[in-house]
Amino acid sequence: MPHTNPYTVGLDKNLANYTPLTPTSFLERAARVYPDRIAMIHGDWQATWKETYSRCRRLASALSKRGIAKGDTVALMAPNVPAIYEAHFGVPMIGAVLNTLNTRLDPEAIAFQLEHGEAKVLITDREFSPIIEKALLMLGTRPLVIDIDDPEYQDGKLLGEKNYEAFLEEGDPDFSWSGPADEWDEIALNYTSGTTGNPKGVVYHHRGAYLNAISNIVSWGMPHHAVYLWTLPMFHCNGWCFPWTIAANVGTNVCLRRVDAKLIFDAIKKHRVTHFCGAPVVHSMLINAPEDVRGGVEQTVHGFIAGSAPPLAVIEGMERIGFDITHVYGLTETYGPAAVCAKHPEWDRLPIEKRADQIFTF
Amino acid sequence: MPHTNPYTVGLDKNLANYTPLTPTSFLERAARVYPDRIAMIHGDWQATWKETYSRCRRLASALSKRGIAKGDTVALMAPNVPAIYEAHFGVPMIGAVLNTLNTRLDPEAIAFQLEHGEAKVLITDREFSPIIEKALLMLGTRPLVIDIDDPEYQDGKLLGEKNYEAFLEEGDPDFSWSGPADEWDEIALNYTSGTTGNPKGVVYHHRGAYLNAISNIVSWGMPHHAVYLWTLPMFHCNGWCFPWTIAANVGTNVCLRRVDAKLIFDAIKKHRVTHFCGAPVVHSMLINAPEDVRGGVEQTVHGFIAGSAPPLAVIEGMERIGFDITHVYGLTETYGPAAVCAKHPEWDRLPIEKRADQIFTF
Repeated sequence: MPHTNPYTVGLDKNLANYTPLTPTSFLERAARVYPDRIAMIHGDWQATWKETYSRCRRLASALSKRGIAKGDTVALMAPNVPAIYEAHFGVPMIGAVLNTLNTRLDPEAIAFQLEHGEAKVLITDREFSPIIEKALLMLGTRPLVIDIDDPEYQDGKLLGEKNYEAFLEEGDPDFSWSGPADEWDEIALNYTSGTTGNPKGVVYHHRGAYLNAISNIVSWGMPHHAVYLWTLPMFHCNGWCFPWTIAANVGTNVCLRRVDAKLIFDAIKKHRVTHFCGAPVVHSMLINAPEDVRGGVEQTVHGFIAGSAPPLAVIEGMERIGFDITHVYGLTETYGPAAVCAKHPEWDRLPIEKRADQIFTF
Repeated sequence: MPHTNPYTVGLDKNLANYTPLTPTSFLERAARVYPDRIAMIHGDWQATWKETYSRCRRLASALSKRGIAKGDTVALMAPNVPAIYEAHFGVPMIGAVLNTLNTRLDPEAIAFQLEHGEAKVLITDREFSPIIEKALLMLGTRPLVIDIDDPEYQDGKLLGEKNYEAFLEEGDPDFSWSGPADEWDEIALNYTSGTTGNPKGVVYHHRGAYLNAISNIVSWGMPHHAVYLWTLPMFHCNGWCFPWTIAANVGTNVCLRRVDAKLIFDAIKKHRVTHFCGAPVVHSMLINAPEDVRGGVEQTVHGFIAGSAPPLAVIEGMERIGFDITHVYGLTETYGPAAVCAKHPEWDRLPIEKRADQIFTF
């Protein structure tokens, strides 16, 4: 075997010497290479990649100080606000497992997941305090509860021991962390909707999250520095891995608490959004928005539409209002999109209804 | 540990059940999803992705019939013609190791590499028959020699047992192959120039080739279906993994036997080339081409320029003739580019000499 010759720099299959794939590395790079680019916009608030990295390190550090370590579950109940984005990095930086909760579930289902996932911490937004308050009462052991006290939301109440911003203050912005020793280590726990009984937990690993995050860039042919609007819930299959994709792409995350046609079009126009994802129902809402709401978009907006066979009218409608739509399909078990309808450039010459017909055929 | 609960679809770390990363998978996908797109152009000859896949399967099959199997070395001495591209897929499909030879080496250095790498097959282009003929005489054991008898080249002579096209005829275009069982298995063997003694062999693995091929897309922000001109030798660090990148991108490979300003500009204009790679010397040649040679390029052409600190005048000169240049740096040991100068959009507002200054600072 020539490849073991001393002249040969051979293969090192010793796992102690390899660099595990982990999407947390994308954030470190974004902060180092593009420190001053805007990473996140939420209402009037914004943060650069350097600031986002500091906040994520603070979160990792603060969790660590509370005893959270490798394999521990950190649950989170929130709409698409900065805290849920930051948790996608701060939690796995210390080897903990992020369990984002579906905000549409009832207290029983939430309690089941917190109990089953053995959540040690719950980070929760005021908007869902009526549900969470009930769910907490059903638990044998109460986790550490941290409230997201978002200035963009006025209702609900605080339930926990501390609010999120004060919790970050406990952490070190220069916290020293290392990626996982093994890329197959768990990064996230997502429960399916449980149509056939109790919800089933799906565990994602760092390797899969890394590969699917990069695959989003490659499948979509994303240029650098996308401006990504958060219409898709981050709690849903970790937003199809897009929290990590946008860090790898060094794009800008535009947060959105509520899926509403006017809010969406305002954000698209104000921040020059280039990419977003959503279910067919989100797309229908956009098509049916009044002309004064949807008019005035100057850039091309690229949308991933997911779900089985979206109605022809939806794809056709989106194309008619100037959006470039790609159909994808996936499952919780596949980290989000597993199948992509790879568009063929020659379809551009087809009439719009024929093109729409191709776009969801695979 | 909640993640081992029977309700949980847990992590399967059993390597028998994972899908190894291998760049050979890109070709299969390109042929399946875009069978009729042009994969390769060489003079008046062209092949679709479906045809390229068939030719690669024929190569894998023909090698297999001659007893070539996992771990065996297949050496190749050729300029950027279709055969060297096809070998990047056909050879690793059967677990064999591709050893592309530097066409600028003398017979002694070639003989050393064939002997040291224990090449069982040598695929060689007529252009290098004077060197190869001498090298073969220096070997204790003669490998199976296959001639590339390229209609685009008239000189030199045939040295081997068979020519490449006839060899492909021996193979099955529907050959059933499987990727590597282990992604850390070797895919290629590349010798460094040996400035401090005999050349040193560097072994690439499937995982590294996959990741660097994808990294080229992400680092460059490549849109789908690039038209890639082969100015960079494929024998050099496997063309920085771009044979695999272009399959993943489902682009078009424009072959080029010789680096010559007129040939390059003719190809750029005729085939609407969008991307190419090259050393500073290639870029200088383009800048210094007469206006009638370099005029008339309508599209933006993106170039990766490699090497340590290219002269400011080269980057500035390329920008002046309308090319978009990205500086990269790497080693044989790093699968080609390991460092990329990540350009910042705000540099576009700088005067050209300031911008050029940024572009090679990292």
